[in-house]
Amino acid sequence: MRNVIVTGCPRADLADVATLAEFGVATVHEALGRSGYLGPAIRPLDQGSRIGGTAVTVLYWPGDNLMIHAAVEQCQPGDILVATSSSPCSDGIVGELVATALQHRGVRGLVTTGGVRDVADLRAMNFPVFSAAISAQGTVKGAAGAVNVPISINGQVIAPGDAIVADDDGVVVVPRASVQAVSAAAARRAESENEARAAFRAGELSLDRSSLRGVLAQLGVQYVDYEADQAST
Amino acid sequence: MRNVIVTGCPRADLADVATLAEFGVATVHEALGRSGYLGPAIRPLDQGSRIGGTAVTVLYWPGDNLMIHAAVEQCQPGDILVATSSSPCSDGIVGELVATALQHRGVRGLVTTGGVRDVADLRAMNFPVFSAAISAQGTVKGAAGAVNVPISINGQVIAPGDAIVADDDGVVVVPRASVQAVSAAAARRAESENEARAAFRAGELSLDRSSLRGVLAQLGVQYVDYEADQAST
Amino acid sequence: MRNVIVTGCPRADLADVATLAEFGVATVHEALGRSGYLGPAIRPLDQGSRIGGTAVTVLYWPGDNLMIHAAVEQCQPGDILVATSSSPCSDGIVGELVATALQHRGVRGLVTTGGVRDVADLRAMNFPVFSAAISAQGTVKGAAGAVNVPISINGQVIAPGDAIVADDDGVVVVPRASVQAVSAAAARRAESENEARAAFRAGELSLDRSSLRGVLAQLGVQYVDYEADQAST
Amino acid sequence: MRNVIVTGCPRADLADVATLAEFGVATVHEALGRSGYLGPAIRPLDQGSRIGGTAVTVLYWPGDNLMIHAAVEQCQPGDILVATSSSPCSDGIVGELVATALQHRGVRGLVTTGGVRDVADLRAMNFPVFSAAISAQGTVKGAAGAVNVPISINGQVIAPGDAIVADDDGVVVVPRASVQAVSAAAARRAESENEARAAFRAGELSLDRSSLRGVLAQLGVQYVDYEADQAST
Amino acid sequence: MRNVIVTGCPRADLADVATLAEFGVATVHEALGRSGYLGPAIRPLDQGSRIGGTAVTVLYWPGDNLMIHAAVEQCQPGDILVATSSSPCSDGIVGELVATALQHRGVRGLVTTGGVRDVADLRAMNFPVFSAAISAQGTVKGAAGAVNVPISINGQVIAPGDAIVADDDGVVVVPRASVQAVSAAAARRAESENEARAAFRAGELSLDRSSLRGVLAQLGVQYVDYEADQAST
Amino acid sequence: MRNVIVTGCPRADLADVATLAEFGVATVHEALGRSGYLGPAIRPLDQGSRIGGTAVTVLYWPGDNLMIHAAVEQCQPGDILVATSSSPCSDGIVGELVATALQHRGVRGLVTTGGVRDVADLRAMNFPVFSAAISAQGTVKGAAGAVNVPISINGQVIAPGDAIVADDDGVVVVPRASVQAVSAAAARRAESENEARAAFRAGELSLDRSSLRGVLAQLGVQYVDYEADQAST
Repeated sequence: MRNVIVTGCPRADLADVATLAEFGVATVHEALGRSGYLGPAIRPLDQGSRIGGTAVTVLYWPGDNLMIHAAVEQCQPGDILVATSSSPCSDGIVGELVATALQHRGVRGLVTTGGVRDVADLRAMNFPVFSAAISAQGTVKGAAGAVNVPISINGQVIAPGDAIVADDDGVVVVPRASVQAVSAAAARRAESENEARAAFRAGELSLDRSSLRGVLAQLGVQYVDYEADQAST
Repeated sequence: MRNVIVTGCPRADLADVATLAEFGVATVHEALGRSGYLGPAIRPLDQGSRIGGTAVTVLYWPGDNLMIHAAVEQCQPGDILVATSSSPCSDGIVGELVATALQHRGVRGLVTTGGVRDVADLRAMNFPVFSAAISAQGTVKGAAGAVNVPISINGQVIAPGDAIVADDDGVVVVPRASVQAVSAAAARRAESENEARAAFRAGELSLDRSSLRGVLAQLGVQYVDYEADQAST
Repeated sequence: MRNVIVTGCPRADLADVATLAEFGVATVHEALGRSGYLGPAIRPLDQGSRIGGTAVTVLYWPGDNLMIHAAVEQCQPGDILVATSSSPCSDGIVGELVATALQHRGVRGLVTTGGVRDVADLRAMNFPVFSAAISAQGTVKGAAGAVNVPISINGQVIAPGDAIVADDDGVVVVPRASVQAVSAAAARRAESENEARAAFRAGELSLDRSSLRGVLAQLGVQYVDYEADQAST
Repeated sequence: MRNVIVTGCPRADLADVATLAEFGVATVHEALGRSGYLGPAIRPLDQGSRIGGTAVTVLYWPGDNLMIHAAVEQCQPGDILVATSSSPCSDGIVGELVATALQHRGVRGLVTTGGVRDVADLRAMNFPVFSAAISAQGTVKGAAGAVNVPISINGQVIAPGDAIVADDDGVVVVPRASVQAVSAAAARRAESENEARAAFRAGELSLDRSSLRGVLAQLGVQYVDYEADQAST
Repeated sequence: MRNVIVTGCPRADLADVATLAEFGVATVHEALGRSGYLGPAIRPLDQGSRIGGTAVTVLYWPGDNLMIHAAVEQCQPGDILVATSSSPCSDGIVGELVATALQHRGVRGLVTTGGVRDVADLRAMNFPVFSAAISAQGTVKGAAGAVNVPISINGQVIAPGDAIVADDDGVVVVPRASVQAVSAAAARRAESENEARAAFRAGELSLDRSSLRGVLAQLGVQYVDYEADQAST
Repeated sequence: MRNVIVTGCPRADLADVATLAEFGVATVHEALGRSGYLGPAIRPLDQGSRIGGTAVTVLYWPGDNLMIHAAVEQCQPGDILVATSSSPCSDGIVGELVATALQHRGVRGLVTTGGVRDVADLRAMNFPVFSAAISAQGTVKGAAGAVNVPISINGQVIAPGDAIVADDDGVVVVPRASVQAVSAAAARRAESENEARAAFRAGELSLDRSSLRGVLAQLGVQYVDYEADQAST
């Protein structure tokens, strides 16, 4: 672990990120080629929110939120703090006070593999959090870490300045350089989904629409009648 | 694993299932002799819903929702899709599009040991889901499985056509042939609970009502006074 | 395990507990020296509640809620039932009927490492629950345990009569003899947080306010410019 | 849960089971159509053993091994005890004494989702155990359950008299009526594996032997040169 | 958490502990009334060892082994280091160097809810370890904790000077003041087990020996014949 | 996920890797600045082995080992196959046949977040495996993935050609470009450890050797006498 705080990181364009975020986490993940998803363990504190922004990354030591404090200074409007620890730890690294400081700097939310506390306050102040835990367990401020280095969550690498989209489905990361291309792919996918939705509402089956009957046949999946099957087994 | 899609399965009578469902999951589970519960890992997407219906079962490959698509065609009004994978996998096997197709066919909800995505949409369209995960992770459509074969979740076997009841306490399965008998037992239990509730509100203790003082004595559980106990230890 | 039911336990003063509870779980945990927290696995059934009371402790056998029934009799107004099992078990040890009995005795809520059921009813009757599981799985009444002996959850010891505070952040225990002192410490902390909050809203950084820049320097954390860093690696 | 002890269950033929067991767990699982595997959580106490036998099934209450004691009487030479609890529990349900009783009756081993204890003794007496836990935690003998009813572990149903094969890869169940057919399929698979092994030792690739290059191409998997790829990204 | 290092703690008598340890973990746990077991998550690094000694307790911060270093000085011949963290952490808090220092002071082994590393060396130097994890992840030395205060693992309190017994079944703690009484109870149990073992080897059933047939009958467990049962269901 | 197979990847120098591997996983992890460790979930199949080699990386779909087969062709003597899935899956992706093919190509071992099977055979053929699971569950060969793209395990990125060291402590990755520098740092650390070992054997305390008494004092950790402490609390 390099103990550094990287300053002056370029960010994805916020207008591009806003366009991307409208498609939501599941569609963006698909548009990325089924990639970038930070996994089902990271859940929203509040139902119904959707945020998009640019990543300020934090790698912190378990039980220690010193680097969170260091990261606040690196944040600018439109950022989302994305924090993970060098080994798994559910302690509450952000509470209402740090969230106040983050909100003051224009930070749009927090994503973490760790925990948060003062969650009633966090909900009341409309500070979106996507975390793996809610924990009142406090931390100390005595161990080194890093800010704005690439980190990895659920097998996905998050570099500083990458686009983050988070909603009720979880969190997805899109590399800074790919935001526009992924938005375009997401738009195509959304269009295709609109057509599928209309078809399904009209009673068409995905088996037919996606030509899956042939796949089933090729795999040797057989249709059998219940009565006949019961008789034979 | 037999790679089959069984057609023409008989279902429990929907009127009988409706009667059963009114008792709720916990009471039905008790009426079955403390059986049929699909476990605490399967949680409702939305608080406050209760559904009853008949099972269409799916056994799918991890990371692959082909058999979900195949199952849609086998569904009829009153069914509940119950899906599990051949090895554990939290990927999102159903999203808003498949739910649209299921809803079009009159399916009342989804129960799965896997995951779902587009959950904001699923909530908005009032499609009840009871799942072990929420995950934006997408799946492919290339591996065989089965529809309407008996499957097993949490040690309980679910056969096609069995009655399913799901609410905030989770999900319970009742064998098709037992629905009326279990409803009758549930009614007796509900009656007994009504009497107990009234008694408890009047201050009676379950220790007395259920004759548990004798059980405590038989097990050698002793009453000791705090002060005396502190003095002796 | 001593199979005893201890009667006549002294309790923390309820007025003192009420004062303590106002500070909330996270602040009380800090005021105790970052101690007493029962861990992130115990979650509230309902969002937004906060309770304070005095512990009636239960140690029960897995799959068996006999001692819960025995504990009801030991409860008095202002108590909170705190129950754990001799080995981990998620079964539903309390449902709406037992909650009715507890509520009749003035019990303010339930804290358990196990499960509860009838949760729609529990929510409707405003009986606060903080549990590790929701499970319809029923229990028997045939195994011994203990009431009002010290128990331990998440490495924290809970003695009968100790103060319990529970809210959206989880549950904290404060030894009976320390309630007033912890309240005083919590008040000091809350005051300090008020000042910090105002400062953060005015743009001050915790790096400066808490003199953390020196800590970073001492730990060898270096600031590097993004462009320079990219060039060198 | 039906509280019954079923007597006089037919068993798979032990000579057939012996033939089956020689193929080992992985091959038998494949020969069954990738089915019957009791999952990676059940591990052998000792490395290097392989057993085959006929199932005597037990469904026991968490924390209670009464039904294990009841099951001993139902065992005959060649049996393997297969035990699971009505809700998950790691307590030690079998120790050296029960194992002595089982060994006296000719039982070949134990398979359980629970725990065992006295494991140094169990190893010393060469009693094969495949369990999900090692736990010294003791149990009581006061709750009902069932012996020789169908149970389910990891989604697989085990009926009394079914064939069980267990080795370092875990445990697989084969329905009593299918033992000979599965043995035949396993033999064909083993033969095919022998040929593949020889081919691989001679340097042939499975890509060619199993015609997987076409699958890769059909899926759109592309070969790219490292240098060219680095240049383009 | 009180940040203290308690010196001069009295220990259980080592001769008494040696007598106790001969009975092994499972028997001692039973002799304590099925109590004191530190749970199935703590496993021996090496198979076949059994140690007894007196506890030096450590409460350390996650990711930080400063207090382990502080504890070494408090150890004396016959001690066993028992260490847990204020919140769960699997990092390797002890490696071969610290083990060398512990061994020099006559420490008989380590019990921890955390992790150890250099395990090949630890095995080679015959330093017994019972831990919840093996992890090469290193720690820092910058956070406070406590030595020789009561700690709690798996719901069991370990006070400094308590007797610790550890073998292949895990770890059990016996309060310092109870060692002789528990040894006596363990001796009685061992005697009873000797008799039971002989009886089981002679073919007696525990159903008869422990009068369990009446329990089964009282619980309503019925014996049914397989053929009759198949016909009726 | 890019569905590519990258060919012609440069590797770390095998002689350099051999030098590095001699230091073992824990020392290499420390020399990297406490980084590169793949976590405690990945365990060796056999005790006592230590391997070093160069990474061929695989990203495979859950339940599908097609890309493992594709990867075999990319392997050359000195390589270690490092495989992870796009979402967590414990299925057995490598058995004795694939291991035979890998061994034929000079591959030194397998590291995976998934499972392996035929483990008795794998042990017999001395093919080192470090995996998160042992599972007989079979896979299919129908889903795309990638070979020799950067993958991430436990927050650590593994690029093709990076150095891998694995022993009883787990697995560590060292970037290809850093192998010599890390070896040098590891040598310095090993030298320092040799001195510390000698000092500890002579009775010096790490408290003194590492100047930790001042750290304890600065953190406010106090020494208290047991008798005095008991009297005051």
